[in-house]
Amino acid sequence: MNVQGRHYRTIWVEGEGAQAVLRIIDQTVLPHEFRIIDLHSVAEVCRAIREMWVRGAGLIGATAAYGVWLAAREAEHLSAEEFRVRMAMSMEALRVTRPTASNLVWALKRQQSALEGLHGAAATAAAFAEAQTIADEDAEFCRRIGEHGKGIIEAIAAKKPGQPVNILTHCNAGWLAFVDHGSALSPIYAAFDAGIPVHVWVDETRPRNQGASLTAWELGQHGVPHSLIADNTGGHLMQHGMVDMVITGADRVTRCGDAANKIGTYLKALAAADNGVPFYIALPSSTFDFALRDGVREIPIEERSADEVRVMTGALQDEEGTTEQGATSAEAPRTASVLICPESTPARNWAFDVTPARLISGLITERGVCPASEEGVLGLYPEQK
Amino acid sequence: MNVQGRHYRTIWVEGEGAQAVLRIIDQTVLPHEFRIIDLHSVAEVCRAIREMWVRGAGLIGATAAYGVWLAAREAEHLSAEEFRVRMAMSMEALRVTRPTASNLVWALKRQQSALEGLHGAAATAAAFAEAQTIADEDAEFCRRIGEHGKGIIEAIAAKKPGQPVNILTHCNAGWLAFVDHGSALSPIYAAFDAGIPVHVWVDETRPRNQGASLTAWELGQHGVPHSLIADNTGGHLMQHGMVDMVITGADRVTRCGDAANKIGTYLKALAAADNGVPFYIALPSSTFDFALRDGVREIPIEERSADEVRVMTGALQDEEGTTEQGATSAEAPRTASVLICPESTPARNWAFDVTPARLISGLITERGVCPASEEGVLGLYPEQK
Repeated sequence: MNVQGRHYRTIWVEGEGAQAVLRIIDQTVLPHEFRIIDLHSVAEVCRAIREMWVRGAGLIGATAAYGVWLAAREAEHLSAEEFRVRMAMSMEALRVTRPTASNLVWALKRQQSALEGLHGAAATAAAFAEAQTIADEDAEFCRRIGEHGKGIIEAIAAKKPGQPVNILTHCNAGWLAFVDHGSALSPIYAAFDAGIPVHVWVDETRPRNQGASLTAWELGQHGVPHSLIADNTGGHLMQHGMVDMVITGADRVTRCGDAANKIGTYLKALAAADNGVPFYIALPSSTFDFALRDGVREIPIEERSADEVRVMTGALQDEEGTTEQGATSAEAPRTASVLICPESTPARNWAFDVTPARLISGLITERGVCPASEEGVLGLYPEQK
Repeated sequence: MNVQGRHYRTIWVEGEGAQAVLRIIDQTVLPHEFRIIDLHSVAEVCRAIREMWVRGAGLIGATAAYGVWLAAREAEHLSAEEFRVRMAMSMEALRVTRPTASNLVWALKRQQSALEGLHGAAATAAAFAEAQTIADEDAEFCRRIGEHGKGIIEAIAAKKPGQPVNILTHCNAGWLAFVDHGSALSPIYAAFDAGIPVHVWVDETRPRNQGASLTAWELGQHGVPHSLIADNTGGHLMQHGMVDMVITGADRVTRCGDAANKIGTYLKALAAADNGVPFYIALPSSTFDFALRDGVREIPIEERSADEVRVMTGALQDEEGTTEQGATSAEAPRTASVLICPESTPARNWAFDVTPARLISGLITERGVCPASEEGVLGLYPEQK
């Protein structure tokens, strides 16, 4: 999608051969600064995933895939056996960067198959080709999710002519979370681009504020009308008919349709069910974990640093409430962190929760929309029966 | 309750006669600084309420009542007629400090009755006595709420010997919101003081973070084990059996038991119902609005400044993640505000939502615990039939 009028993907390669570098957008400094980072090694890729410079299911998968390419390039000089061992270590290093991300494991498996029996330059070339394929597929699947989801928005719009369709979303499942287009936001972009009036309620998404910092930024760049709200607000809006539908992304979805997504998604699904508001999860097939059935029992939930809850980061405001400029750059404001609780307060920080399939109106995938049930999922993915 | 091992109320009088001063805790600088402010005149009391140095239904009422005492003392030298006129002006000045606070109007009416036909030293004495009575009653009602609620916690503790009772709360309905003890936190203090092991999940309570800044501070000062969590977390905890009960306060409760409280309370009530977790509202009788029945339709919900969502305030952290000290005091850290979204992002900010009675397990009042229904409420308050 566009940034300041220019099209970007979230990850791309610049240059050729040994000089080629992997480029990403540093999502930790958005929305206050648009900074592009060059990654030269698998170690740097691991850091980029772990430190969440890149985040989001699709983008993590693509980044890991490119990480395997960099690992292969670094190990090009090794013998077949040494290469096999080194690659296993690199893949393990990539795998442990984010425990809940199933796209990561999926991308590594694809690379493992692509590298089967190869080493040297042939392995590097194969890993590069596979990474590019994974990235292209990710963007294309997201584009199709947008097309399928657009139909749902269109149907709601037809029932309230002249009025915007109010869509609530949680966290960031926009193009920043994938290689392009996004999952939850892709139908919104598709509807908006087709001239359907939409307005998005953007959950700020504590504790990391991906809604406030990323979703609000993306929607603003694309011109989609939106309003930022505290995560606490959605229930009140739904009680008063101010939400026509909810669309979120997912980090992992079981074969029965249970969906792990950013913590707090389950609460919005409960409010949607209580108020008869349709609740959709948008995801590419890579987000399915067909080995799992019961999401609440089986999906491991990552616990993260307490300081993500205790400390908040943003653009420093001066006493008049104006953003202070940084000393080093006219374009980057001065960012700062503030502690919002007593120094001694302990905090806990689980990153995801699981929304049971019974609360989900449908799953929007690249193959179409299906009920959140084993029958529904396997109807679209019969090869998983 | 205790601060650094010493018992405090949120408002008290020090000294005697013309030299007596009214003391409050400045709640705008908590939790980073414990600052006591002396109020000498009704004008200073008006400012304390308007600037939210004091907040919370019970405390606002008591503060206004003490304000009338200071007004009477200032007007002691006036004739009966001049006194009457001056007091009417002072009460109006107090009334307009927080236009929607019903306890404020209620306290002023009580003072008006107490002063009927009096002036001079007798009026000052009567106003002082009535203010003390209002403050004592507030503390006593909250203490009784604690006693009644303690029974519920005790019953849960009996079913899990040796393990703490995990209680989730939203916003601040602690002693800081009243004269002492609090509403939602009072049963927790009572249980803790009785040696029942408890652990409190403290919702940070966006956008104003009263959980992070006030509830976490109070519980920490009194020594009650607690963990700060993002508002999004409660559903996940309840799905995994990590919450034994929920207790929140309320801003207004209808005769049928619908409860308006800080935005987001409704979402926790939905999660509690979905997971079989008991959900209680604790309130003194002054919080009932017996004229209303349907909370979602009838209770007006205040919309506040968008910047409460967009901008976050706290203690400034240096680059090592340590709190920076302020220039003026060794004890007060430097506070700062940060913008968490793009400059151009619009935000909306509703302050309360309504939890329907059907989701509430019971109301904990100073008269006992009752079902959240008209029959239940009128069973405790038969005079409202």
